[in-house]
Amino acid sequence: MSALPMVERDPSLPDRVTIYEVGPRDGLQNESGIAPVDVKVAFIEDLMAAGLPIVETTSFVHPRWVPQLADAAEVVDRLPLAGRVPLPVLVPNERGLDRALEAGVRHIAIFASATETFAERNLNSSVEGQFAMFEPVVRRALDAGVDVRAYVSMCFGDPWEGPVAPARVVGVGTRLLDLGATQLSIGDTIGVGTAAHVARLVSEFGDAGVPVDRLAMHFHDTYGQALANALAALRCGITTFDASAGGLGGCPYAESATGNLATEDLVWMLTGLGIEHGVDLAALVKASVKMARALGRESPSAVVRALS
Amino acid sequence: MSALPMVERDPSLPDRVTIYEVGPRDGLQNESGIAPVDVKVAFIEDLMAAGLPIVETTSFVHPRWVPQLADAAEVVDRLPLAGRVPLPVLVPNERGLDRALEAGVRHIAIFASATETFAERNLNSSVEGQFAMFEPVVRRALDAGVDVRAYVSMCFGDPWEGPVAPARVVGVGTRLLDLGATQLSIGDTIGVGTAAHVARLVSEFGDAGVPVDRLAMHFHDTYGQALANALAALRCGITTFDASAGGLGGCPYAESATGNLATEDLVWMLTGLGIEHGVDLAALVKASVKMARALGRESPSAVVRALS
Repeated sequence: MSALPMVERDPSLPDRVTIYEVGPRDGLQNESGIAPVDVKVAFIEDLMAAGLPIVETTSFVHPRWVPQLADAAEVVDRLPLAGRVPLPVLVPNERGLDRALEAGVRHIAIFASATETFAERNLNSSVEGQFAMFEPVVRRALDAGVDVRAYVSMCFGDPWEGPVAPARVVGVGTRLLDLGATQLSIGDTIGVGTAAHVARLVSEFGDAGVPVDRLAMHFHDTYGQALANALAALRCGITTFDASAGGLGGCPYAESATGNLATEDLVWMLTGLGIEHGVDLAALVKASVKMARALGRESPSAVVRALS
Repeated sequence: MSALPMVERDPSLPDRVTIYEVGPRDGLQNESGIAPVDVKVAFIEDLMAAGLPIVETTSFVHPRWVPQLADAAEVVDRLPLAGRVPLPVLVPNERGLDRALEAGVRHIAIFASATETFAERNLNSSVEGQFAMFEPVVRRALDAGVDVRAYVSMCFGDPWEGPVAPARVVGVGTRLLDLGATQLSIGDTIGVGTAAHVARLVSEFGDAGVPVDRLAMHFHDTYGQALANALAALRCGITTFDASAGGLGGCPYAESATGNLATEDLVWMLTGLGIEHGVDLAALVKASVKMARALGRESPSAVVRALS
């Protein structure tokens, strides 16, 4: 059997997509196992070699909160930060920014919330308070010539508050762009969103003057909707998608599979649609299988399981 | 957390969809475990009670080939075959039809192939030869007032032959309609298809004079594409979708997850899109969890894992 789908173009969809790889950061921080530094560095190198055009590598969060990424400085120290492939790191606050700047990082990401409850629980702040918290982070990063991406979490639903109105997400997103973020990553953190909700949100951003090329979509597969939602977003003209190699972060044995969209499953769809992405699927699957073995479990990605 | 997604309609999609439940037949025949008759009958009753408008119950295939369904006659004997909910059974040949008619079955399904290799391996025939084989089955069924659905398998790709041209599928499908089948179930048996390929196939059926209401789509999640492909098919106006409760037939622990689209994941998407389907998701999840326990494993459906 061929390891690639038959290609059938849909001229109404974009010609080219950028996959923003989040496996080494968002994936690994949600795994119960902790990979050694060598394994992480090799994984990031494998992902770059497989053609991923941007790879988020780690987080300068306090190790107390995310012990899985306690080795952030060591990982970053061994990566080509000034190379062709941007290697962003997540930075939760000014202390994290200090560490990132010391390490020579050129791209950072901040992590905001669209809802009050999650802002309180995850940021120990409020929706309004987070802007004051992020303002010096973004300003100092830009002053240092460092690019800033902003994640917006809980954009479709919130475990405590239920459905989230698109207007709230647009309100938070535009404030983050005003601070100086170059791109918003619109996260369905709990995976409840469906296709027309995606289209509605993208449309409301457009009404607020935010064009599709400032937006990335970040889908989780908790309810199996991630790839269908990516298809819906493609149809709205979105061209940047977050995805996690091998579906890292969503354990197939867990009671609840809360993982990110698997990069391989996205690549399969894009390849079938004739949309350029630059990723070598076989090399990517190999990298994911290696990491799954290091974590001592199978990959939750359907494509990885089918091809490995 | 609410157990339902926020509803956002897309007026370009159908208002209502029929879910053709295949779990008790296509699901269970692909499980390594064998459920007792009582468990199967209770499962089918649970599915009917959950609002599934049609449930394929079993197959009158020789037990040598599918030992999982060796109890077909016993199962069917305990079901309300003349009730409000059609309860079709799969019938591979005239001998199977004899057994189905004896049992009082009112709806049958036949299983054809779009490719030579699969026709040979699965039917011990050829693409051309299968029509002669099915002709008396369909004719005798219709004469007895029994409705006939025709599955067409390998419609997107074939493990031995690679990609399958839409024209071949349309050729086989129209011959089966000419024999007297009332509906075609277009199967991506190995799960390789992607969204625009789905649209192309539906469009080529249209060019051949086959309207969307004669077509059902039957997607497998081998490469994670099933729900995205269902969304693409909805956009073409397709209103009947095959799905398997709990994702039965695709074991989450298997090397390759070749299962059907999980009914729950489809229901989640349809609910979010505001498309009527008549299914009570909580009742369906309960039925799937019960069956997964009987089989001694977790459900591969993301929605089932998230909600149970």
